[in-house]
Amino acid sequence: MTTIIRGGTVVNADRAFRADVLCFGDKIVAVGEGLEAPPHATVIDASGQYVMPGGIDTHTHMQLPFMGTVTADDFFTGTAAGLAGGTTTIMDFVIPDPKQSLLEAYHTWRGWAKKSAGDYTFHVAVTWWADSVHADMGTLVRDHGVNSFKHFMAYKNAIMADDETLVKSFTRALELGAIPTVHAENGELVFQLQQDLLRKGITGPSAHPLSRPPEVEAEAANRAIAIANVLGTPVYIVHVSCAESLDAITRARAKGQRVYGEALAGHLVIDDSVYYSSDLEFARGHVMSPPFRGKHHQAALWQGLQGGNLHTTATDHCTFCAEQKAAGADNFTKIPNGCGGVEDRMSVVWDAGVGTGKLTPSEFVRVTSTNAAQIFNMYPRKGLIAVGADADIVVWDPQGTRTISAKTQFAKGGFNVFEGRTVQGIPTTTLSAGNVVFSKGELRAVEGAGRHIDRPAFAPVTA
Amino acid sequence: MTTIIRGGTVVNADRAFRADVLCFGDKIVAVGEGLEAPPHATVIDASGQYVMPGGIDTHTHMQLPFMGTVTADDFFTGTAAGLAGGTTTIMDFVIPDPKQSLLEAYHTWRGWAKKSAGDYTFHVAVTWWADSVHADMGTLVRDHGVNSFKHFMAYKNAIMADDETLVKSFTRALELGAIPTVHAENGELVFQLQQDLLRKGITGPSAHPLSRPPEVEAEAANRAIAIANVLGTPVYIVHVSCAESLDAITRARAKGQRVYGEALAGHLVIDDSVYYSSDLEFARGHVMSPPFRGKHHQAALWQGLQGGNLHTTATDHCTFCAEQKAAGADNFTKIPNGCGGVEDRMSVVWDAGVGTGKLTPSEFVRVTSTNAAQIFNMYPRKGLIAVGADADIVVWDPQGTRTISAKTQFAKGGFNVFEGRTVQGIPTTTLSAGNVVFSKGELRAVEGAGRHIDRPAFAPVTA
Amino acid sequence: MTTIIRGGTVVNADRAFRADVLCFGDKIVAVGEGLEAPPHATVIDASGQYVMPGGIDTHTHMQLPFMGTVTADDFFTGTAAGLAGGTTTIMDFVIPDPKQSLLEAYHTWRGWAKKSAGDYTFHVAVTWWADSVHADMGTLVRDHGVNSFKHFMAYKNAIMADDETLVKSFTRALELGAIPTVHAENGELVFQLQQDLLRKGITGPSAHPLSRPPEVEAEAANRAIAIANVLGTPVYIVHVSCAESLDAITRARAKGQRVYGEALAGHLVIDDSVYYSSDLEFARGHVMSPPFRGKHHQAALWQGLQGGNLHTTATDHCTFCAEQKAAGADNFTKIPNGCGGVEDRMSVVWDAGVGTGKLTPSEFVRVTSTNAAQIFNMYPRKGLIAVGADADIVVWDPQGTRTISAKTQFAKGGFNVFEGRTVQGIPTTTLSAGNVVFSKGELRAVEGAGRHIDRPAFAPVTA
Amino acid sequence: MTTIIRGGTVVNADRAFRADVLCFGDKIVAVGEGLEAPPHATVIDASGQYVMPGGIDTHTHMQLPFMGTVTADDFFTGTAAGLAGGTTTIMDFVIPDPKQSLLEAYHTWRGWAKKSAGDYTFHVAVTWWADSVHADMGTLVRDHGVNSFKHFMAYKNAIMADDETLVKSFTRALELGAIPTVHAENGELVFQLQQDLLRKGITGPSAHPLSRPPEVEAEAANRAIAIANVLGTPVYIVHVSCAESLDAITRARAKGQRVYGEALAGHLVIDDSVYYSSDLEFARGHVMSPPFRGKHHQAALWQGLQGGNLHTTATDHCTFCAEQKAAGADNFTKIPNGCGGVEDRMSVVWDAGVGTGKLTPSEFVRVTSTNAAQIFNMYPRKGLIAVGADADIVVWDPQGTRTISAKTQFAKGGFNVFEGRTVQGIPTTTLSAGNVVFSKGELRAVEGAGRHIDRPAFAPVTA
Repeated sequence: MTTIIRGGTVVNADRAFRADVLCFGDKIVAVGEGLEAPPHATVIDASGQYVMPGGIDTHTHMQLPFMGTVTADDFFTGTAAGLAGGTTTIMDFVIPDPKQSLLEAYHTWRGWAKKSAGDYTFHVAVTWWADSVHADMGTLVRDHGVNSFKHFMAYKNAIMADDETLVKSFTRALELGAIPTVHAENGELVFQLQQDLLRKGITGPSAHPLSRPPEVEAEAANRAIAIANVLGTPVYIVHVSCAESLDAITRARAKGQRVYGEALAGHLVIDDSVYYSSDLEFARGHVMSPPFRGKHHQAALWQGLQGGNLHTTATDHCTFCAEQKAAGADNFTKIPNGCGGVEDRMSVVWDAGVGTGKLTPSEFVRVTSTNAAQIFNMYPRKGLIAVGADADIVVWDPQGTRTISAKTQFAKGGFNVFEGRTVQGIPTTTLSAGNVVFSKGELRAVEGAGRHIDRPAFAPVTA
Repeated sequence: MTTIIRGGTVVNADRAFRADVLCFGDKIVAVGEGLEAPPHATVIDASGQYVMPGGIDTHTHMQLPFMGTVTADDFFTGTAAGLAGGTTTIMDFVIPDPKQSLLEAYHTWRGWAKKSAGDYTFHVAVTWWADSVHADMGTLVRDHGVNSFKHFMAYKNAIMADDETLVKSFTRALELGAIPTVHAENGELVFQLQQDLLRKGITGPSAHPLSRPPEVEAEAANRAIAIANVLGTPVYIVHVSCAESLDAITRARAKGQRVYGEALAGHLVIDDSVYYSSDLEFARGHVMSPPFRGKHHQAALWQGLQGGNLHTTATDHCTFCAEQKAAGADNFTKIPNGCGGVEDRMSVVWDAGVGTGKLTPSEFVRVTSTNAAQIFNMYPRKGLIAVGADADIVVWDPQGTRTISAKTQFAKGGFNVFEGRTVQGIPTTTLSAGNVVFSKGELRAVEGAGRHIDRPAFAPVTA
Repeated sequence: MTTIIRGGTVVNADRAFRADVLCFGDKIVAVGEGLEAPPHATVIDASGQYVMPGGIDTHTHMQLPFMGTVTADDFFTGTAAGLAGGTTTIMDFVIPDPKQSLLEAYHTWRGWAKKSAGDYTFHVAVTWWADSVHADMGTLVRDHGVNSFKHFMAYKNAIMADDETLVKSFTRALELGAIPTVHAENGELVFQLQQDLLRKGITGPSAHPLSRPPEVEAEAANRAIAIANVLGTPVYIVHVSCAESLDAITRARAKGQRVYGEALAGHLVIDDSVYYSSDLEFARGHVMSPPFRGKHHQAALWQGLQGGNLHTTATDHCTFCAEQKAAGADNFTKIPNGCGGVEDRMSVVWDAGVGTGKLTPSEFVRVTSTNAAQIFNMYPRKGLIAVGADADIVVWDPQGTRTISAKTQFAKGGFNVFEGRTVQGIPTTTLSAGNVVFSKGELRAVEGAGRHIDRPAFAPVTA
Repeated sequence: MTTIIRGGTVVNADRAFRADVLCFGDKIVAVGEGLEAPPHATVIDASGQYVMPGGIDTHTHMQLPFMGTVTADDFFTGTAAGLAGGTTTIMDFVIPDPKQSLLEAYHTWRGWAKKSAGDYTFHVAVTWWADSVHADMGTLVRDHGVNSFKHFMAYKNAIMADDETLVKSFTRALELGAIPTVHAENGELVFQLQQDLLRKGITGPSAHPLSRPPEVEAEAANRAIAIANVLGTPVYIVHVSCAESLDAITRARAKGQRVYGEALAGHLVIDDSVYYSSDLEFARGHVMSPPFRGKHHQAALWQGLQGGNLHTTATDHCTFCAEQKAAGADNFTKIPNGCGGVEDRMSVVWDAGVGTGKLTPSEFVRVTSTNAAQIFNMYPRKGLIAVGADADIVVWDPQGTRTISAKTQFAKGGFNVFEGRTVQGIPTTTLSAGNVVFSKGELRAVEGAGRHIDRPAFAPVTA
C-alpha cells in the first residue's frame, strides 16, 4: 500500500517543517517538499495540519484480570480506541502472580494481545523473587524483546515488591541492559491508612485519596530513585501524579541521575474534587491509583513536562464498567482501580498543553511519542517522521474540536473521566504500519493487525 | 552539700549573663550577681570562665552486647568518662533481641546501669512487632519514664525494622506521646553492597564506607520522615552524617514538619580518609555506622547546626578494643561497629564550633544540652542553669587546651578517634547532682551515684 | 506600683509553667508559685489564663508622611491600639528623604513619638548614600540606641536604595554591629509593570497585585541575602509575603547564613481575592506592599514560622482612611500603601496559629516577642517573663473571643483588614512598664507614658 | 566540490547510526548506508570514527578591544584554530561602548570578521539604554540576522547594564523574538570587593577569585532569571561557572521557565588552584571572569549538562599574551580578562565527558552544537547531520589522542589553560561549508572563507 500525505507540517521532536510524507508498505520511504507519488497512491490532504509520529501510550492495561474482575477493554477494543485518538503503539503490562513464572505469564499476555489492532509491547512486572525470576528476566530480554521491568511498590499482600525484590531486580535489569520501572506508592502506608479509614467507618470513594496522600507516593519514588542511584541503573517512574513525587525526580536529575518520569493525561487536567461528588458511581468511576490530586499538582506536572523532568505521557488505561466498580460500594478498597483514556490522551495533552502555550508542537511530539521511543529503545522506528521509520502517523487538525463523551467513544466501559470536555486539536487521519486505520471520525481498525514490537536491550539514551 | 560557683558567665540557650550559681543538695537554688553563700559552702572560682548546663549525650551504648562481644566501657566507666568531659547525662539504648520482651530487656539494661556515675536514661528499641510489643510500649511510657523509641532501619537479618514495624510502632508512639527515633540506613541496600564487595574480594575496612554510601542513609531518613509525616508524629533522626540525609530533614522542616536531627562529634570533624590508612588496626578502629564521610559533609553538618535543621550533638559512644575489632580482620562486615567520644564531645564541638565562630556560646549550649532536654522532655530539669534545675553544671575554660589521646583518657577501649587533636575549650569543674565530680583534671566519679531520669510523655516541644 | 498576677501559666519561648508574677515599678521582681505580695498590691487573677511577654510589633508606621498624606494613627493612638491588643513595644521607622540628614530625620521622629502610650524604638532607613550618611549611621548606633537600618529595594524615584547603597550601607552596618533590614521588592520591575498596566488602561486596585508578583519580591530577597552573604553580615527581611521569597531565606539558612524573616499577620490569613472586590473602596483599603497573595502562600508562611525560617510577626501598621485611599481612585499607583493591624496581630496569630495546632504557646511567644527582642537586642528586657525583665505583660484568655471590626477598634482610619473575623484568644489585661494599661476591654493608655528603648549594637544572637 | 565520508557512525543529538554522508557544494545532500558518489568525489574514510555536526562555540571574542588592548587572536586566526579543533561556527560579540550606536558597532565588527576562515555570527551587547538603542535592536533583528542580545551585569563604570537597562532591553527583545543573554555577576559587589582587596594591599592574581565569589554570580543569574520570568521572556546565562548559579537555573527550569545555561570547557576541568601558583605569569594567564572555581563546582556543571539544566558548551575564547596580561602585574583588576580554548573545547568535553561515561556521544553533539543551533535558531542548518544541512562536519576519532600545548596550537597568545593535558578523542577531518579545512593535523583554513550566519527571530525552541 502506498500513501502520500501532502501539504502538511511535519512535526518531530527537534523541529517542524513543511513536507510531504510518502509511505510504502509499513514504512515511511520519503519525506520532503513536493514529493512525487505513484498514481495509485492514496493521497491524504494535510494542508493546514500537522503530520506527527503516532502516539505511544507507555502505560495501558488491556484485558487485565485485576481485583477479581477483568477490564472492559480487551486488546482489540483498547488498541482500536487508541488508533481513533492518534495513538499507534501501546505499552502494556505482563503481571505475573507471585510465584508464577514470568515466562508463562508473558506468553499468556502475548496470546491475549494477538487480537490487537495497533502495535503493542510489554513491560513485565517483577512481583516476587526467586532464582527462576532472575533466569526468566534474562530469557525475556534476550529472546523476547523485553527491555523494561515493572515493580509495584504498592498493593501489599498482593503484588507489592519489597526492598529486597527491588534491589535484586534492579541489579538484574542493570546487567541485562533493561530499565526498571516503578509504581511508586508505599504499600505499607497505604494499607495502614486504608485500615484506619475502614475502622473509622469511612468506606466511600472519598476515602480513596485520603488513603494515598502525595507523601506516600513521594516516599516510594524517592526510594526507588535512591536504590537506582546506589546500583547505578536508570529508573523510570510511572504515573507521577504530584508535586512531591516530581520533586524527588527533579532533585535526582539535577544531580545528573538518569531518572525518567511519566505523567498521565488524567492527572494533568483532573483534580480530586471528583471523589467528593454525591454521585457515588461517578466518584467510583474515578478511583485509580495514584488518585487525582489537588489542583496545584496539575501545574507542577505541566512544569515537569516543560522543564524536562517528566518525559512521557500515558493513561494507565484500565477500564471497568459501573457494575464492576460497584464491587466496592461498601468498601472503597474493593473498588477496582482504573480509568480509561487511551483514546483521548493526545487531544487532551494538545488542548491543555499546546493550546495554552505550555508546550510547543515539537515538545508535544516529544512527550507523546519520541521520548517514550527513546527510553524504551523503539527509536527511530517509532517516535519520528523520517525515512525508514514505521508509517505510524497521525494527521492533526489544530483547529478541529471534539467533545469527549463515553456515549461517543470507541473504548468500552461506559465511562470517561474527561466526559464533557471539549478539546481543540484532533486527529483527522491515523496511519498504523502504513494503513489508514482512522479517517475523519471513522475507525477502520482491523483485529489482529497490530504487531508485537521487540525492544532491544541497552537503549542508547539510558546508557 | 552546698556549692557556689562565683564570678563566671552563665550561658543558657537564650542568653549569657554574669552571675553566681548557688547549689544545694542536687539542685540549683539561686542564680544572680553577688550571691551570698553559707560559710561552709564549697566555692568554685569561675572568673573568666563560662558556667553552662552539663552536657547531654543523646546517643551512647555502654556495656552493649553487640556483634558477638561487649563494649569496653560499662555504665560506670562510660558515665565517668562523660563527667570528665562535661557531660552529665547520657541517653543510652535498650536493644531487645527480636522476639524478646521489651520490658525484660528494659529491666536488664536498668540493672546494668545501676553502677553509673552520672545520670542516665534510655531510648528503647523496637526491633520486632507483636501485640506484646504494643503493650510493652504502653507500660514503658506509663510506668517507666520512657518517651522515645528507637528503630534500626539497617542491620538486616538482625534488628532491622521493616516498614510494617515502623508504621505500627510510630503509630503507637504517637498515641502514647512518645517520639520515634531512627537509625537511618537502608538495610537492604547495605546488605546487597556488602555481599557484592565480599564477592569481589574487597574485605578490608576500606570497604566499610563503600557499603554505606550517603544515598543509603538519605533514603532511609527520607522514608522515616515520610512515614512520620503521613502519621502525624514527630521524628528524630540519630547520627545524621551526610549532606543528603540532612537535606531530607531540611526539606521536611521547611514544610513545618517536626523533625529533629542529631550530629555526632566524630562526623563533625573526621573524614573518611581514615578508612584508607595502611594501618588496618587504625582503620578498623574507625568502623562505625554511618561511616565517616567526605570532607564537604562536615561543612553541611555545621550548617545544619547553625541553621536549626540539626538540634543535638552526641557520640554514639560504643567502644571496642583492638582485639575485638580484629574479629573483622578478614571480613569488614564482622568488625564490631562503634567508636568512643563521650569524654570528648563537648570540647570537640566547642573547639570546632565556637572556636571558629560557627556557633555562639548560647548555640553551643543549645546543641549540647538544651535541645536534647526539650525534645526528650527533661527540660528545665536538664539543659538550663536556673533555679530549680538539677545542679548538673560544667565550668568551662574557653582558653584551656587539652590534647586528646587514648593514653590519657578515662574511657576504656584503648583507642580514640580524636587522637592527637588539641582542643581549646575544656571543663575545669563538673558538677553532677550538686557534687563536684571532676575538678581540674581530677575525676571524682562515684560508682552508683548516677540516677535514672524519668522522662514524661507528651513533650511540649514536639506537641 | 506593685502588681501581682496570680494563678496563671507563664509562657516563655522555652517553656510554660504555673507561676505567679510580681511586678514592682516597671520591672518584674519575682516569678514563682505561691508568691507573697504586699497588701497594697494590685491583684490580677490569671487563673485559667496564660501570662506572656507583651508583644513586640517589629514593623509599624505611626504618623508617617507618605505618598502626600499622613497616616491616620499617630504615636499615641497607634501605641494605645497596640496595648489594647497585647502589644507593648513597637518598632517604627525613621524614613529620611533622600538627601536629608539621618540624624535630623531621627530627631523629627523622636519628637513625634513622645506622645506614645507604649514603648517604642526605631529602625532608621538608609534611602541614599553619602559620607554624611556613613557618619550618621555611626552616631545613631553609638549615641542613640539604634541597631538596625532599613533599606527599601522598591519605590523607584523615591526612597529606593540601589545596589551601591545596599553594599555600602550593609558594610557600614557590619562594622557598627547593627543589622541591615530590607523591604524586598525589585523596584525597577514594579515600576515597569505599573507603567505597562497604566498604559493598557488597567488602573483599578486589582492592578496592584499584578504589578508586584511574588517573583519581584523573591528576587530582591535573594539579592539582599546574597549581598549579606558576600559581606558577612546578618540580614533581616521585613514582611515576607510569599513562598518564593521564603524559599530564598530557607535556602540561605540551610547553608548556615544568619538570615531572619518577618511575617505580617495580614499575609498569614488574608488572600488576594480582596483586590478583585467590586467594592473599590474595600479593595483600595487592602492596598499595601507587598500585596496579599494567593492562598497557598499563607500555608507556606505558617510553615516558615513552624520550621524556624521565619522569626517574627508584625503588621506594617500604616493606616489611611477611605478619603486618603481615594487619591488613587483613577490610578492604583497613587493609592497610599498601607493597612492596620497593631491592635489585632496577637489575637490573629494565636487564633490561626495556636488555635489550629500549628504553633505551641511557647512558639507563639517566640514569634510575637522573644525572637524580635533577641534579633534587635532588647532581650531579656523584652520578650521574657523573668526577674529583671520589663513588666510588659499580657494576660491571655485562650477561651475568650472577639469579633474584629473597624467599628469597635481603638485604632484610627475606619478600616480593618480583619473586619468580621472572630478570633479566639484575647488579652484580658495588658501591663506596660508595670502599669495596667488595658483591662477587660477597657483601655487605660496614657499619652506620653511610652519610653524610647535604646538597643545596643552587636546583638549576641546575630554575632 | 563533492565529498563523501564513508563508513563512519553518524552521531546526531537524537541517535547514532551507521551511514555515509555525501556533501555537494556547501550542503549535505545524502545520508545513508552504501551511498554512491561521483567518481571525482573526495573520499574520506571514517571507518571506526564518528561523523558529527561541526561544533558551535557560542561564546568567543576575536579581535576584541578590551581593557586597553586587543586580543591576540583575530577573526582569521581564531576561527582557523576553531576549525582545527572541530568547531565550524563561532558566536562572537558586538560590544558597543556606552553611548555608541549599536548599528555602528555592529558594522565595525562585521568588518573585522570578514577575514574569518569559518562561519560566524554575532550576539550584540546592550551596554546602555536610549530610544536609539531600542530602535537599533529592531533594525538588527529585522535586517541583520541578529536574534540574541547580551547584557553584562558586571564591569561597573564600564559596560555594566543596570536593572533599568535589563528590564527595558529584555522587554524589547521579547517583542522582537530575540533572546536576551547575560554575563551574570553582580558588578557592584565585584567592585566593592576589588576595592577592599586593593585597600588591604592584596594586589596579585590570587585576589581575582576572591573578588568574584560564587554568590556574586548566583545573585546575578537569579536576578536575570527573575526579570525574564516576570516579563515572560526566555533567557540564556553565559559561562555558568558554579553550583550556586546553576542552582538558580535548575530551580527556574523545574518551574517550567525557559532558561538556558552555557558551560565553558575551562570551567568543566580547571580549578581555582591556578590562581595560587607562585608563577605569577601562569596565574595571570588564567584570569578570566567568572574565575575558575573549587573542584566540586566541576562536578555540578557536568551534572547540569547531564540533567539538561545546562545546554551548551563554549570557551569565552579571548586571548591575551603574557605582555598584555602583565598590565595587571601590580593590580589584579588591570589584568586583561580572558583565556583561549576555541581549538580545544571539543576534545576537552569529549575526553572528560564521553570518555568518563558522563555523556553519551549523542549528548556530546547536543551540548557542542545542536542545542546552540536550536536556541539561537540556526537549526537544522547547523547542529545536525541531515540532508539539506550545511556541510559543517567533524570526523572524530575516539581513540586518537593529543597533548594540548601552546607550543603546538594554532591559536595565538602563547598560552593555553589546558597546557599539558592529554585528551583522547580528536578530530581527524573538519569540513566547513563542504570544504576540507583540517585533515590529520594539517590546517587548510582559508582567510575570508567564513560566512556570516543570519539568525531569524522567534526561534521555535524558545517560543
